[in-house]
Amino acid sequence: MDTLIEKIIETGNPTVAGLDPKLDYLPESMIKQSFDKYGETFEGAANALFSFNKELIDALCDIVPAVKPQSAYYEMYGIEGLKCLKKTIEYAKSKGMYVILDAKRGDIGATSEAYAKAYLGKTDLGTERERAFEPDSMTVNPYLGTDGVKPFVDQCAANRKSIFVLVKTSNKSSGELQDLISGGKPIYEHMAGLVKEWGIDSIGTHGYSRVGAVVGATYPEQAEVLRGLMPHTYFLVPGYGAQGGRAEDVAKSFNGDGLGAIVNASRSIMCAYKKNGGGVGEAARAEAIRMRDDIVSAIK
Amino acid sequence: MDTLIEKIIETGNPTVAGLDPKLDYLPESMIKQSFDKYGETFEGAANALFSFNKELIDALCDIVPAVKPQSAYYEMYGIEGLKCLKKTIEYAKSKGMYVILDAKRGDIGATSEAYAKAYLGKTDLGTERERAFEPDSMTVNPYLGTDGVKPFVDQCAANRKSIFVLVKTSNKSSGELQDLISGGKPIYEHMAGLVKEWGIDSIGTHGYSRVGAVVGATYPEQAEVLRGLMPHTYFLVPGYGAQGGRAEDVAKSFNGDGLGAIVNASRSIMCAYKKNGGGVGEAARAEAIRMRDDIVSAIK
Repeated sequence: MDTLIEKIIETGNPTVAGLDPKLDYLPESMIKQSFDKYGETFEGAANALFSFNKELIDALCDIVPAVKPQSAYYEMYGIEGLKCLKKTIEYAKSKGMYVILDAKRGDIGATSEAYAKAYLGKTDLGTERERAFEPDSMTVNPYLGTDGVKPFVDQCAANRKSIFVLVKTSNKSSGELQDLISGGKPIYEHMAGLVKEWGIDSIGTHGYSRVGAVVGATYPEQAEVLRGLMPHTYFLVPGYGAQGGRAEDVAKSFNGDGLGAIVNASRSIMCAYKKNGGGVGEAARAEAIRMRDDIVSAIK
Repeated sequence: MDTLIEKIIETGNPTVAGLDPKLDYLPESMIKQSFDKYGETFEGAANALFSFNKELIDALCDIVPAVKPQSAYYEMYGIEGLKCLKKTIEYAKSKGMYVILDAKRGDIGATSEAYAKAYLGKTDLGTERERAFEPDSMTVNPYLGTDGVKPFVDQCAANRKSIFVLVKTSNKSSGELQDLISGGKPIYEHMAGLVKEWGIDSIGTHGYSRVGAVVGATYPEQAEVLRGLMPHTYFLVPGYGAQGGRAEDVAKSFNGDGLGAIVNASRSIMCAYKKNGGGVGEAARAEAIRMRDDIVSAIK
């Protein structure tokens, strides 16, 4: 987690820009240009999405420490979409950004090992070993318990990567399962205990483990409790902006050291140009600065 | 779910062959042939995997109603692996098999909608709409609750597809979360209640809804309880064979009508040739027949 934390300190910005593009979010001219060249095909769409991502990354890379591509939005465009995901990850890394792939994978042990190799480690190819996708970090779903998460933790350790495990998600119905009370405490606190345990061996220079937690901005009271329970766990905080989380809400996810959380916004940055005018990159940069200042002043 | 059930009745076989290939499972000659042509690359690996899958599908398609490719094993081989997944889905469908993609996706609503379009529905491409991947069914992770699952249910309804939601998984540590007791009953029973509710509007000709449940063969007592709680829910039952589930265990997941469950085996079929000799396809077919007879006699 140190690599991410150092980028956050360097930029003075504890936020991450979500890259969850779909055609609706793109300027019409950008779509037209690509469809004119490749037709109304997955290739045409994926090409336009990459242009959009590239403009966002170029505009944000010196002031935002990380990007979080959401795998679903690339899978939706098939093989071409996945090529765009791969290129987006590579491009963001080439610009010095930390890349958190939001893929929420999780399965039985042997299968989680395959996912972990796909995104955090290397795949065996006869006498060769290659990386299929190269994010620095990914999100993991813990429904299957320790043996479904451990392969990700192991690949993190072997490849200097990190993961963020779902604990309390930002959506409205997250409580149906996550808030059920068992043994006097909600499920998300049980998960917090496991996440803490999975990370205990890997606390780095800045005091945080390789195993982070996803904690939604839309549940500030729960975030405050979780912050107390998991002092050495970095939080990835979705739900700021379009989903309704405010700066004072996300502030609950930070520790007294001003660290401990990285706040995501996707639509509000990607689509800032629609609301405020200007080019995609220019508007995104202005919104990212506004968001940074909003959050930094709330955590002071 | 009727389409799957009719194939099960037609073949007299309530089983599904898992296609979770990795190079270790393939005959050396098959790997060598592909590496000689494409090098020790993702392309070389993916090409060998497709040859393997094709041999399995050809050998099984008239006696096994369905295949279940596990997405992780394709993602591990990058873009080339995903091309192999797409081709495998198409090939199995062309041979008349029902295809359940084991991808365990699940996210907040808008993102689940993107996943659901990727695998069950169509993606908007300007004035066109295309299918990115075309399985008949997929597995879904319910950690985020109703708004994370509903988009899959909606795409099922619009496209005559089905899903199987994780309820009680087959792995050793599944109980860490799934067995916690809340309000006098374990979490997996709470999930069963939700799954039942999500499917209630879509009960088909044979009495089963579009929303199935994943219930591991390794927990027969829990399966028996769940069977009673969810009479109209089809169960996808992993964990038979290599993971330790026996025919009398999986029998608990069936209803009195001889329907209600489809049992998966992956390694024991894919790697039957290693244990019993013969070619990949020939050995897989013999093992699939043995498994069918084992299970059919246990449920009688």
